[in-house]
Amino acid sequence: MAEGRDYKVKDIAQADFGRLEIEIAEVECPGLMQCRKEFGAKQPFKGVNISGSLHMTIQTAVLIETLTALGANVRWCSCNIFSTQDHAAAAVARDSAAVFAWKGETLPEYWWCTLQALTWPGEDGPDMIVDDGGDATLLIHKGFEAENAFLKDGTLPDPSTADNEEVRIVLQIIKDGLEAGETDKWHKMAAKLVGVSEETTTGVKRLYEMQADGSLLFPAINVNDSVTKCKFDNLYGCRHSCPDGIMRATDVMIAGKTCFIAGYGDVGKGCAKSMQAQGANVIVSEIDPICALQACMEGFRVAPIDDVLETADIFITTTGNKDIIMASHMAKMKNNAIVGNIGHFDNEIDMAGVEGFPGIKRQNIKPQVDRFIFPDGHGVIILAEGRLMNLGCATGHPSFVMSCSFTNQVIAQLELWNEKDSGKYEKKVYVLPKHLDEKVAALHLEKLGAKLTTLTKDQATYINVPVEGPYKPAAYRY
Amino acid sequence: MAEGRDYKVKDIAQADFGRLEIEIAEVECPGLMQCRKEFGAKQPFKGVNISGSLHMTIQTAVLIETLTALGANVRWCSCNIFSTQDHAAAAVARDSAAVFAWKGETLPEYWWCTLQALTWPGEDGPDMIVDDGGDATLLIHKGFEAENAFLKDGTLPDPSTADNEEVRIVLQIIKDGLEAGETDKWHKMAAKLVGVSEETTTGVKRLYEMQADGSLLFPAINVNDSVTKCKFDNLYGCRHSCPDGIMRATDVMIAGKTCFIAGYGDVGKGCAKSMQAQGANVIVSEIDPICALQACMEGFRVAPIDDVLETADIFITTTGNKDIIMASHMAKMKNNAIVGNIGHFDNEIDMAGVEGFPGIKRQNIKPQVDRFIFPDGHGVIILAEGRLMNLGCATGHPSFVMSCSFTNQVIAQLELWNEKDSGKYEKKVYVLPKHLDEKVAALHLEKLGAKLTTLTKDQATYINVPVEGPYKPAAYRY
Amino acid sequence: MAEGRDYKVKDIAQADFGRLEIEIAEVECPGLMQCRKEFGAKQPFKGVNISGSLHMTIQTAVLIETLTALGANVRWCSCNIFSTQDHAAAAVARDSAAVFAWKGETLPEYWWCTLQALTWPGEDGPDMIVDDGGDATLLIHKGFEAENAFLKDGTLPDPSTADNEEVRIVLQIIKDGLEAGETDKWHKMAAKLVGVSEETTTGVKRLYEMQADGSLLFPAINVNDSVTKCKFDNLYGCRHSCPDGIMRATDVMIAGKTCFIAGYGDVGKGCAKSMQAQGANVIVSEIDPICALQACMEGFRVAPIDDVLETADIFITTTGNKDIIMASHMAKMKNNAIVGNIGHFDNEIDMAGVEGFPGIKRQNIKPQVDRFIFPDGHGVIILAEGRLMNLGCATGHPSFVMSCSFTNQVIAQLELWNEKDSGKYEKKVYVLPKHLDEKVAALHLEKLGAKLTTLTKDQATYINVPVEGPYKPAAYRY
Amino acid sequence: MAEGRDYKVKDIAQADFGRLEIEIAEVECPGLMQCRKEFGAKQPFKGVNISGSLHMTIQTAVLIETLTALGANVRWCSCNIFSTQDHAAAAVARDSAAVFAWKGETLPEYWWCTLQALTWPGEDGPDMIVDDGGDATLLIHKGFEAENAFLKDGTLPDPSTADNEEVRIVLQIIKDGLEAGETDKWHKMAAKLVGVSEETTTGVKRLYEMQADGSLLFPAINVNDSVTKCKFDNLYGCRHSCPDGIMRATDVMIAGKTCFIAGYGDVGKGCAKSMQAQGANVIVSEIDPICALQACMEGFRVAPIDDVLETADIFITTTGNKDIIMASHMAKMKNNAIVGNIGHFDNEIDMAGVEGFPGIKRQNIKPQVDRFIFPDGHGVIILAEGRLMNLGCATGHPSFVMSCSFTNQVIAQLELWNEKDSGKYEKKVYVLPKHLDEKVAALHLEKLGAKLTTLTKDQATYINVPVEGPYKPAAYRY
Repeated sequence: MAEGRDYKVKDIAQADFGRLEIEIAEVECPGLMQCRKEFGAKQPFKGVNISGSLHMTIQTAVLIETLTALGANVRWCSCNIFSTQDHAAAAVARDSAAVFAWKGETLPEYWWCTLQALTWPGEDGPDMIVDDGGDATLLIHKGFEAENAFLKDGTLPDPSTADNEEVRIVLQIIKDGLEAGETDKWHKMAAKLVGVSEETTTGVKRLYEMQADGSLLFPAINVNDSVTKCKFDNLYGCRHSCPDGIMRATDVMIAGKTCFIAGYGDVGKGCAKSMQAQGANVIVSEIDPICALQACMEGFRVAPIDDVLETADIFITTTGNKDIIMASHMAKMKNNAIVGNIGHFDNEIDMAGVEGFPGIKRQNIKPQVDRFIFPDGHGVIILAEGRLMNLGCATGHPSFVMSCSFTNQVIAQLELWNEKDSGKYEKKVYVLPKHLDEKVAALHLEKLGAKLTTLTKDQATYINVPVEGPYKPAAYRY
Repeated sequence: MAEGRDYKVKDIAQADFGRLEIEIAEVECPGLMQCRKEFGAKQPFKGVNISGSLHMTIQTAVLIETLTALGANVRWCSCNIFSTQDHAAAAVARDSAAVFAWKGETLPEYWWCTLQALTWPGEDGPDMIVDDGGDATLLIHKGFEAENAFLKDGTLPDPSTADNEEVRIVLQIIKDGLEAGETDKWHKMAAKLVGVSEETTTGVKRLYEMQADGSLLFPAINVNDSVTKCKFDNLYGCRHSCPDGIMRATDVMIAGKTCFIAGYGDVGKGCAKSMQAQGANVIVSEIDPICALQACMEGFRVAPIDDVLETADIFITTTGNKDIIMASHMAKMKNNAIVGNIGHFDNEIDMAGVEGFPGIKRQNIKPQVDRFIFPDGHGVIILAEGRLMNLGCATGHPSFVMSCSFTNQVIAQLELWNEKDSGKYEKKVYVLPKHLDEKVAALHLEKLGAKLTTLTKDQATYINVPVEGPYKPAAYRY
Repeated sequence: MAEGRDYKVKDIAQADFGRLEIEIAEVECPGLMQCRKEFGAKQPFKGVNISGSLHMTIQTAVLIETLTALGANVRWCSCNIFSTQDHAAAAVARDSAAVFAWKGETLPEYWWCTLQALTWPGEDGPDMIVDDGGDATLLIHKGFEAENAFLKDGTLPDPSTADNEEVRIVLQIIKDGLEAGETDKWHKMAAKLVGVSEETTTGVKRLYEMQADGSLLFPAINVNDSVTKCKFDNLYGCRHSCPDGIMRATDVMIAGKTCFIAGYGDVGKGCAKSMQAQGANVIVSEIDPICALQACMEGFRVAPIDDVLETADIFITTTGNKDIIMASHMAKMKNNAIVGNIGHFDNEIDMAGVEGFPGIKRQNIKPQVDRFIFPDGHGVIILAEGRLMNLGCATGHPSFVMSCSFTNQVIAQLELWNEKDSGKYEKKVYVLPKHLDEKVAALHLEKLGAKLTTLTKDQATYINVPVEGPYKPAAYRY
Repeated sequence: MAEGRDYKVKDIAQADFGRLEIEIAEVECPGLMQCRKEFGAKQPFKGVNISGSLHMTIQTAVLIETLTALGANVRWCSCNIFSTQDHAAAAVARDSAAVFAWKGETLPEYWWCTLQALTWPGEDGPDMIVDDGGDATLLIHKGFEAENAFLKDGTLPDPSTADNEEVRIVLQIIKDGLEAGETDKWHKMAAKLVGVSEETTTGVKRLYEMQADGSLLFPAINVNDSVTKCKFDNLYGCRHSCPDGIMRATDVMIAGKTCFIAGYGDVGKGCAKSMQAQGANVIVSEIDPICALQACMEGFRVAPIDDVLETADIFITTTGNKDIIMASHMAKMKNNAIVGNIGHFDNEIDMAGVEGFPGIKRQNIKPQVDRFIFPDGHGVIILAEGRLMNLGCATGHPSFVMSCSFTNQVIAQLELWNEKDSGKYEKKVYVLPKHLDEKVAALHLEKLGAKLTTLTKDQATYINVPVEGPYKPAAYRY
């Protein structure tokens, strides 16, 4: 361990390999590198504690080291049990930040890591959080709530009341803390927190719900809905990583196959496009008639899953909802149908149902690739145990598109910190202003050799925008 | 002329042909036909006067006759001098509404038609307006303004002060009216008006400007920004009609050609996609870094027009801005380079400049296709005199996608009328609520054989939406 | 009529318009223009009579005038009753060759025109033929056969024995000639003929059959199977003209529609690609498992027509076979299903069956677009009466790709003429050698700004080809 | 080692994992599995020795075990030092055949393995060979030639005369054998050999050269030019494996990048298509004007490598030629430009030049991914040391498309064996007949749910083919 830094990673010896890949990724992250150049000298995060819960990949390493280049102290965990790239974790742990993450954590390990990332020895907690999916934020809110109950009448959380395994573990962790005498840990943490910047749709949804019911404990910036995040990372990232995950996991020929994509949001659009481009016949399911009509306009058939169970070869969930592919569905699929999730949580696929299916047999082919054999003899190949298959079976989204997302994160963290005393941000959810969104894009154009056209003053007046932007109204959909 | 109906069209004898094509288009307009079925019996527009200024095509005929099927009296003009389909105009004029439109109007004729559409013999004016590009709305506002000046001190508008031909004509029309003693025509019209529903980006931009400076005289519904309009008509409509216009006008092979698209908004995206699909090498220009980055992600090169003047074969403007392709640009193009506009107004292309270029010769190849020969001998083929080439050289957008747009129009008109006394709509610009947008989409799915998936209650609760929608937050970008 | 030239066209007054479009097309025909430059001065066809039977379009005009620029006398007819562009015919008739063609010939008129193109006043016939589909060649062979029978025992052909209308007319023409005392017209013509160059698959098939049964009367060059013809004109030409024809005829939105393509050869491949690119869901039928597997690899479903009768919206035949879409099929289609043929002959679609269907009603919407209404009330829209809809409803293939095909024609005619006395060509069917095929391609690259890479001698030796080509073995498939 | 079977693999303990993946691959190999079903019972290869030199992957395992299922004894090596999948090798070594192959062989090891595969203890050699690239065939011919020289006058091959490392090793092996007294090993082997079936373009080219100069020692079947091989494996296989290799090796975002593809044959076409589909701007180089014009028609720019050295991000060679990307090219590329070969041999990329470049530094990032840092500081990332990057960095082509290729191999081996005494095959190169090619395709359709259309007798007569095929003339290009 370098200089006594706190960490838990798979193998610190992979740090050199990780460093090499980080250096290559830096070339692909023009936005983040520009942030280092533009803000590094002023050290805006000097002495600031930032906790992160976000897939511990090579790209995230470039984000983390952009934060540390701006002066921050960082503690980090992953937000998915399979998504850590161990060499990335090793390099960061050795060189720049406290990391608690490895590929293939158990659920209890996962939440232990989250706890470590939030716990700052000798301090009340982080100043800010970078969250992805909202688990760090969730733990704080659950802890806060439990402390309230405990302070009121000594009630301890009861893990046995949880309706799923993850909630049970969360409650147990909080209970353990309370029993160990830490009765205001989460209150102190919430009080210290300047804010959170949230990466993804699922976490954002949770934040808006907390805003709606008044329970949100600190300001939040919704990074997901920056155009340069959701219309790039979600769409083009998945266009890249969906076939990548399937190919690495199964080596299957996509051409000629029938591919069912549940959900036609940004993620579904990216997946459908690349599966079609590889020669699949793509069928989409949707609940939203507008997205369904978009799928039609692109030439995809739109049908519910029940219509394609016996004909589709590959099933991908992208909905952000739960119970999309049930064990009863899988029981009717073709032999060696492939089932994967690229949505957010593993509950899109009924893993419990298939694991508990009477007479089922599980055949592990390689890490993150399992074949479940039904009593009638047909097997279904499930990727990454129902978790994000692009991260579990491949390496997630490539650096360039993550640089777009993560530059938004850095800008959001700067915004939160710079405005911490100004009252600009209440305990609500905010989106970054248009001109910052456009700036993120601009930082990524030169690398691609793209040359912008500049408005004349006369033209700018004619369309009533400043010459230097922003160019679009807030509601513009791109 | 049927029953003494007022009209001016090219050839009423084309009414039968128009009727045939209207009947075929009806099959392709499920949303409009469903409106007739759902609302027709109640005659919600009984006795209501609706004036429209919108390309007088076959599809518009289905819109007009949906309005009349709901009880309305309708007067109509086109919003573009080349976009009228004369057989459509004839059929409507004979059978259902007062039409003033023909293909190839002069500018004075164009504004005369607009005036006719707004002038209701024996009445103060229309109850509502359907506008496209905002010319009908403009005329009323200019007239209102001139009447104010006149009433104040007898000032008459001075056409000679106009900086372009169209403004000159508008001022002349208003001046003529004032001189003829109609000194409160536009005030009475504005007073009677319940509202306008506006079809397109350019008109919407004008409305928001009027809202901003407080001059808007009546409520407006922004139909353009319904998702089922701008993400369908603008995008998929142009994907269809851009190559259609070029092919009909020039019969040129698109494959292998270098095609420059100015602007990568919804219209530019549609054009770029279909030109690439036909085998063109597509280069895009943009002022907005976000749209530029989207173009990069789709594999298009992004460069300003000056970089491609000598290499591109086809130039298409889609910006909604002015002065995009200047005479000086065209002077440097390859022989027989094709230049067309699919944006909105003809000022995207510097027609005045090219027509006045020293030594230029104009060779008319066929209607709406001209070759301008520069003194050095090279010629440039300009489509539709710089006006919308997809309407001038082909027949515009196909029925199905126009049904999406126009169903929004019908719903917007219903909303304005139903709420005329409720105070719901002030003199501001409004977008239709999400559930109506989703309804428009839903009405178009069955025709395509698409089957929606239905949420379970449990799933709906999980993602916190009603089972029956709306499914997305207002800011969702699709 | 200019200088007493023989012709029959629709309207000679359209010659100026035709000339304008021909001049524009010349810019798009680099191969043909290069032939004029390379061979024109030597006048290799000086005094040579060339008869052509090939769609009388603007592009064909550039071919004809390349032949005349090389010295030839030319007589021409179209090879399809709907494919003539009247302004092209007028310009050629006025300026350069004897033309007998107009859009919308009756079948008797069609064969009369063919007869005129083959009949050289005061001479035995043409020296060479340019044929497309083989009708000119067929007439000569049928005439030759009939003369043999007549000379033997005075037998006259009996039109009443014909099993279709066209054969009946052909026999009648020949019979008329015999009865008029021309008993050796076809023998003299065959004797004089140096050879034919045949344009298309269907004609080539007929030639190989005649070669096989020993009845071929003169040498033939199979232009169709030059790579620069069949892999360009058939594929990329149809990718262009298939949606073009459908759009001009029906203005229908292709996006979201289900499109059935019968046949996945070069023509079917082009159609499928462009229909998919416009957003159609494409389903293909095939008899050949290899082509079927290709369709699968591109993501298309492969199914027989019976499986899609009730779901498809657009049906296109591309097979070169007969009886593909029968009246019984059309009876089961959706209302306003579109049916078109882009194969070669109109017998791909059962026109006789649908016209004779009990209770059918025919509604002519516009030229070459008919709606046949079945007794149950549903209608089917048939394009170009079952004939080539890309030529009947649009203007066929664009100039650039026709320049590839037609440069092969010019080179084939040069080859036949130059070798007429060498014995190189027997009464068989030949393909042009690879280096000429490569030359045709090379002539078309500069116009597109393409720059070839040149082999080093060392590299050429390594792969065992000459530095200057040919680069591929004869069997290479491209 | 199972039952004393001979092998050398990396780790026999991986056999279970290999077996699992083989079983999954079998489901994706309908053609091979059908061969087992159709021919297995008759054991046509009973007692036949087959030596193979072909990438030792999971798919090849299914091929090998199809041969053994038909009765053959098999010895196998890989034809590329990086292409072996060690678990596949282990499973086959344990269960079915003698394997000498591991990922990352040195060149001497590679040729040692080839020697083992050809050497049958106690026998003169194999009865037949399955070759890929022709190395097994080469070794036999080189040995045969050396034995002739040795028998003539005792001359031994002189490895020091070799102009490259591989030839040196081959000569050394042969010399060693001669020195060990095996003076007729290769003559006996050639005499025993019934024939070879060759998999790929490069090997086929060598065979035709040997046929041309009369040195071919046994009959050869050119499997590469079966349509179901070259138009599937080469095209669709590379469309799959090109982005797969790049993604696994570098995790780089392809979207927005400029990608240069050297060569636009089947392999180049597949690569160009999938790189474009992932959002790259693709530029192609070609020596052949026909292929160049095809690239233009697909919208790709065509330019020599020198024009793009400073702008392209990814360079892929697909030519089958040598000296395509030289060290001097790489010296001018952008930092972290990616360079990979998917052609056949590693001499497409000037590895010697770059390794010997003055001042160059090599940074190994991970197996088969190296960064070469030039003295000016910019680095170039070379995949798989210039060897096939899709096999070196990913797992090559997927099972389904390899099943097409390998079913041709099985059929070719059956044909050679069945006709060994008939005299049908001389010492020449043959292509499989069309009906067998169509059969291979047919065997792969059902798995994809494709349904063929059947000709009526009347239709078959009309187009002059048998109802059951073959449907196309030999020269048809698909």
